[in-house]
Amino acid sequence: MEATADARPGARPRSAHETEFARIVSFSDGVLAIAITLLVLNLDVPRLASAEQSELSERLLELWPQLLAYGASFAVLGRFWLNHHRLFGALSGFDEWLMRHNLLYLALLVLVPFTTEVLGSYGSEASAVAAYALVLGAAALVNWLMVGHALRMGLVRPEARYVAEQFTGLQGLMTSILFFVSIPIGFLSTTAAELIWIGIFVTRGGQLRRPRRRLESAHPAR
Amino acid sequence: MEATADARPGARPRSAHETEFARIVSFSDGVLAIAITLLVLNLDVPRLASAEQSELSERLLELWPQLLAYGASFAVLGRFWLNHHRLFGALSGFDEWLMRHNLLYLALLVLVPFTTEVLGSYGSEASAVAAYALVLGAAALVNWLMVGHALRMGLVRPEARYVAEQFTGLQGLMTSILFFVSIPIGFLSTTAAELIWIGIFVTRGGQLRRPRRRLESAHPAR
Amino acid sequence: MEATADARPGARPRSAHETEFARIVSFSDGVLAIAITLLVLNLDVPRLASAEQSELSERLLELWPQLLAYGASFAVLGRFWLNHHRLFGALSGFDEWLMRHNLLYLALLVLVPFTTEVLGSYGSEASAVAAYALVLGAAALVNWLMVGHALRMGLVRPEARYVAEQFTGLQGLMTSILFFVSIPIGFLSTTAAELIWIGIFVTRGGQLRRPRRRLESAHPAR
Amino acid sequence: MEATADARPGARPRSAHETEFARIVSFSDGVLAIAITLLVLNLDVPRLASAEQSELSERLLELWPQLLAYGASFAVLGRFWLNHHRLFGALSGFDEWLMRHNLLYLALLVLVPFTTEVLGSYGSEASAVAAYALVLGAAALVNWLMVGHALRMGLVRPEARYVAEQFTGLQGLMTSILFFVSIPIGFLSTTAAELIWIGIFVTRGGQLRRPRRRLESAHPAR
Repeated sequence: MEATADARPGARPRSAHETEFARIVSFSDGVLAIAITLLVLNLDVPRLASAEQSELSERLLELWPQLLAYGASFAVLGRFWLNHHRLFGALSGFDEWLMRHNLLYLALLVLVPFTTEVLGSYGSEASAVAAYALVLGAAALVNWLMVGHALRMGLVRPEARYVAEQFTGLQGLMTSILFFVSIPIGFLSTTAAELIWIGIFVTRGGQLRRPRRRLESAHPAR
Repeated sequence: MEATADARPGARPRSAHETEFARIVSFSDGVLAIAITLLVLNLDVPRLASAEQSELSERLLELWPQLLAYGASFAVLGRFWLNHHRLFGALSGFDEWLMRHNLLYLALLVLVPFTTEVLGSYGSEASAVAAYALVLGAAALVNWLMVGHALRMGLVRPEARYVAEQFTGLQGLMTSILFFVSIPIGFLSTTAAELIWIGIFVTRGGQLRRPRRRLESAHPAR
Repeated sequence: MEATADARPGARPRSAHETEFARIVSFSDGVLAIAITLLVLNLDVPRLASAEQSELSERLLELWPQLLAYGASFAVLGRFWLNHHRLFGALSGFDEWLMRHNLLYLALLVLVPFTTEVLGSYGSEASAVAAYALVLGAAALVNWLMVGHALRMGLVRPEARYVAEQFTGLQGLMTSILFFVSIPIGFLSTTAAELIWIGIFVTRGGQLRRPRRRLESAHPAR
Repeated sequence: MEATADARPGARPRSAHETEFARIVSFSDGVLAIAITLLVLNLDVPRLASAEQSELSERLLELWPQLLAYGASFAVLGRFWLNHHRLFGALSGFDEWLMRHNLLYLALLVLVPFTTEVLGSYGSEASAVAAYALVLGAAALVNWLMVGHALRMGLVRPEARYVAEQFTGLQGLMTSILFFVSIPIGFLSTTAAELIWIGIFVTRGGQLRRPRRRLESAHPAR
């Protein structure tokens, strides 16, 4: 292994530490897989006395806010996982700073089952909306910081810089800003805040996808 | 790496993205492993006062519907995991569409511990049967869509097309249809609906296994 | 890849299906890792009113049966994982039968957090002891069947036959027999049953370890 | 594979048992990933009647001790995972003793979600502080024993001895000693005990990081 030209001291090249890198990635995957699966624990089975069992269908239908919150949070955590997946797929190495911020990123996303349960139970309360947006806005911010750091430190594979650069600058920060902006808006109207989230999901998901395809047609072979 | 002849633009060949592909697969395995293990949380330890402890054996035996639901759902999730396992083992690449539908597939299967608990608690209620069948029918449908997409997009390894083709067409859709058909039948008789499920499990499990063996004796070497 | 001389038709050699084999192994590891970690959920934090908080230390010390059950089950699941680890490390391939029985083996071990909680709550009840021993005896039996099947079907690497053969025959079945024998004994004395378990753990753990060392000094190089 | 010069009999070199070694590492990662994620289950969603829902924001803010305990334990488990990660990254092999002590290490760390919940609920009680410190002190002690054993048994890659040696001797034992010392201090002042923990985290985290960097600039190439 030779020292990569643009890697700063302290950075550990991926090739030389493939096992360590794989462990960070698999630990992150594990944590996100568990967090996404714990969402199902928010769905409470109705407790009915024998005489009331015929009400089960109504009681199951009454769970729709929880089911909606489940589906939304599954999609959100899935999307954050895909982004994490791409960022780490683009890395050529990692350093201490990245490992710590990755842990912080995971700690925030692991809170999502909790904020989802709050939102599923009290969807019309501004503080439930605020808690949900705060956690995701902070996670998006940490992701933005990680991408910037990786680019500055030369930890991104040259051919994948294009991917990472999509997540930087004002455009990359927008997800985080929009989540934070939705907090005060939620105190005026929780519905308006939730519409912003849907907007984030639809527009940002699309934006991130297209350049990748372009990249791949530009570099069809390795 | 050369561009595979029949791969559409946007598809990412497996060889070039082995790490990314491995992460999708391992994330899916992680989610299914957690969902299957969470089934045990549905078994509630009897709460008995000191004076009643001699009743423990009766109370444990009364858990048999929950134990049956546990065993059945473990087998069902195990079977869906085996199918996922085979489908992804046959893939030569993946694309954005497949990643999203894989997440949807996982989101449905993660609901199984919830619908299992509903079924274990209210096995004689048609709505409990409907919830259980709805989730599995939808998961089987998403699986069918994923197989079809992978074949159309040239994401299946040529020598494994035979495997994937078992899951397509009307035959491949049958699992899903039978689960959906069991829903109205459950409103007439929950036992009849459950017999259909056993039928699905026994016949479909067997069908999928045989061609694979034939394939392997036809292609003993790689 | 050439067909291995002693592999039966239907067996899939490990080398040709390294990814599939790795998935089975990693799925099993995931399930066992979750089951072992869920044991901690059996430890209930004492619920104390503000006025009673000075009683916390006594209440924590009263948890010792739960802590003992936690430690014992962690050791037991750890030991079963080590055995699984060794069996699968000795395999040169796998087949459908093995995959199914592996799922059954996992389904039994995932019950351990439940039977542990029953035992931690009602340690002096024979039915709690019986439930605990039944699950572990059955898991040991499935393990014994898997080893025998793998040997008969030529799925064991020749140089590792020695390892697998330790788990077969009457000697390999002994763990299972002893667990089953402890069930009727538990109805006479729960303490006697628990002493049998400690005996299994101490003697069987040791027995399995020594031949491996001998093997390694006999085959220092590959 | 040739026998490594300084490996004792019974030690299994990493290269010859790469799959087995990978399984131990991935099992450990799985257990720690689950334990760290289970921390979120300690955050209880406030249960409010319809008339009280406007109190949600206050009730969420009242959760700060739980949130603090969550964040602290996430950081602590993350740090123990990083150390485990480094120790196992430095190993050239493993033996039975190491596998068992690794299980013991995991069993202790899996208790952290429990002791965290105790601490989050009863932060001002000395026995809550003692339980928390006891578990982490014991885990640090087992880590220290594992490092010493690996060095003595020649299970550390020669070029990584420098890393492992940071964890040995009185300096390596200090984390454990400080946790144990904080137990009697907690009976005088729980705040003082918690300040010791922060001190451990800040100073020990820093100490372990620097030599690694030096190592890497000394050995830029493999």
